[in-house]
Amino acid sequence: MQSIRVELGERAYPIHIGAGILGDSSLYAAHIEAGRVAIVTNTVVAPLYLERLRRALAAAKIDAVEIVIADGEQAKEWHTLDSVFDALLAARCDRQTPIVALGGGVVGDLAGFAAAVYQRGVPFVQVPPTLLAQGDSSVGGKTAINHPRGKNMIGAFYQPLAVVSDVATLATLPPRELRAGLAEVITHGLALDRLFAEWIEGNIERLAAGDVEALIYAVKRSCELKAEIVAEDERESGRRAVLNFGHTFAHAIETGMGYGKWLHGEAVAAGMVMAAELSARTGLIDEDDVQRVRTLIARAGLPVAGPAGLPPERYLELMAGDKQGAQGRGRFVRVDGGGQAVSGRGACYPPRY
Amino acid sequence: MQSIRVELGERAYPIHIGAGILGDSSLYAAHIEAGRVAIVTNTVVAPLYLERLRRALAAAKIDAVEIVIADGEQAKEWHTLDSVFDALLAARCDRQTPIVALGGGVVGDLAGFAAAVYQRGVPFVQVPPTLLAQGDSSVGGKTAINHPRGKNMIGAFYQPLAVVSDVATLATLPPRELRAGLAEVITHGLALDRLFAEWIEGNIERLAAGDVEALIYAVKRSCELKAEIVAEDERESGRRAVLNFGHTFAHAIETGMGYGKWLHGEAVAAGMVMAAELSARTGLIDEDDVQRVRTLIARAGLPVAGPAGLPPERYLELMAGDKQGAQGRGRFVRVDGGGQAVSGRGACYPPRY
Repeated sequence: MQSIRVELGERAYPIHIGAGILGDSSLYAAHIEAGRVAIVTNTVVAPLYLERLRRALAAAKIDAVEIVIADGEQAKEWHTLDSVFDALLAARCDRQTPIVALGGGVVGDLAGFAAAVYQRGVPFVQVPPTLLAQGDSSVGGKTAINHPRGKNMIGAFYQPLAVVSDVATLATLPPRELRAGLAEVITHGLALDRLFAEWIEGNIERLAAGDVEALIYAVKRSCELKAEIVAEDERESGRRAVLNFGHTFAHAIETGMGYGKWLHGEAVAAGMVMAAELSARTGLIDEDDVQRVRTLIARAGLPVAGPAGLPPERYLELMAGDKQGAQGRGRFVRVDGGGQAVSGRGACYPPRY
Repeated sequence: MQSIRVELGERAYPIHIGAGILGDSSLYAAHIEAGRVAIVTNTVVAPLYLERLRRALAAAKIDAVEIVIADGEQAKEWHTLDSVFDALLAARCDRQTPIVALGGGVVGDLAGFAAAVYQRGVPFVQVPPTLLAQGDSSVGGKTAINHPRGKNMIGAFYQPLAVVSDVATLATLPPRELRAGLAEVITHGLALDRLFAEWIEGNIERLAAGDVEALIYAVKRSCELKAEIVAEDERESGRRAVLNFGHTFAHAIETGMGYGKWLHGEAVAAGMVMAAELSARTGLIDEDDVQRVRTLIARAGLPVAGPAGLPPERYLELMAGDKQGAQGRGRFVRVDGGGQAVSGRGACYPPRY
């Protein structure tokens, strides 16, 4: 097992990465003081890992209230969240009862937000069984639910006590989701560390095939890179925005297609190519660099272009409502009232049409 | 104008207290960087003060999006909050757009929670025109909405940039609400500062009659006392609990009667008498002290007993679900599964029947 630490002062926390560690009760005993937790998971993950987690907790003398939500991005909204609150209240969970998120991005985001606001905040532990969550969303404390008018519009920055990332669980991940999870790992390489990007280029087939050693290294390095940025800029007031490479396009794709049609990682993959193309057009990089990005993403089995059904003018419309469109700052994409890109800086330029 | 500072490190903020300062545009210019804010207010406060606030902001070159919610504790729930999110998104408010709460406890709690979670947190300014909010809830960053299963169950600790407390606005407060607002001021005196409690005893009729000088002193001292505690224990993991004097009973009354039947301050007033009676029965204070509390609260025109319609066993039931019933800590009221009080410490003991 490898452990890294996300350095956030009094909110610092460890991420444990290994094969088979989901069932290691000593990890839970080390981070959970209470005699009872509430596990939030979904209908797909529960049959696979809930019993194993429950047993590991029981071995550490920790009881578990189990709350199972629906699978998929559509569940990441208020009614599901309210059903979690209802279950927590019915079970008389109090301010000391930790919430354990057993699930990937959606479960982590929703359960993390529940932990952030239930009784004004309860302890939170993440056990992500997806590559997307292990390599990306388990670092940095972003939690949220979607709003009909936009993705992740309601949420909080809320750090977990600990993250237990068992790469053995990735073996049960549908291949499409494993590939989608590689997208954020690639983002971190391309945006932050050329050496890691080159390592990914040399190992992309091993990763896509689920090689455990390669995955442990990729998850660890991806977390380390993101943790460095997050430690500098926890609330994304500055440098953290670099992690949004490709994400303004990705959010437009996800909102435009309806949440859940494209996996987040697929949208990010296409978004990275679009951001790279744009960067080339604005002279930041050259066409060879773009082709290298395109090739890597194609080798990962991910889309190198946005969905056919989404016309250019829809992107501009959707981007205008994106929360990364920081009004009057110019740090992210800016689109004025007439749908015209007016300024931008960094790696997430709006498209020119 | 007087100003005090709530010392919370990077989250420190000033509270400005004076007569007629709601219209002072320099106060807004000093704390608001953005060129636009969203004002959240309610149907009762809007006709009284919205135009004046809007003009003061305009004089500081700050535009305002206006969001008017229903009046009353019943509005402090998810659907109202969602209507605020909807209005913020429709107006394309972004992460830099501050939310200004123009209103008392309900508006402050709901708008503050909206500010805490809209796009994972936006700046927040409070302009409270009620005594309850000026003397109590504007200090400490507690925000929340109610859940059908309990009061303030969903919320966050979220500090404002600044509070502008104009005691001249208290002249338009219904006398019943002014009296209810005195309850928390009395709480701070009784729980924290004997000299202030004695000052209140000497000035309670002036306060209940709305004397401006007396109110400025009471609001300032009440905020100072609470600010000291909050600075020590922002997230109520320890000492801050002392501020809950009378509140466990009060929450039981409010939940048991249905939110809004009793004003919060009225419930707190009765709760303080009940807590004092209990403290006497457990030997912490004597009957003379209880009588002194009873007399002060009666002179303030506030109830000295709980509602007739709420039987003792309902209190125990309601307290068992209260989030102050910290499981396994013994710091607050504890009631076991069978509805039996098992331990307690401090000033908020459960009743003995």
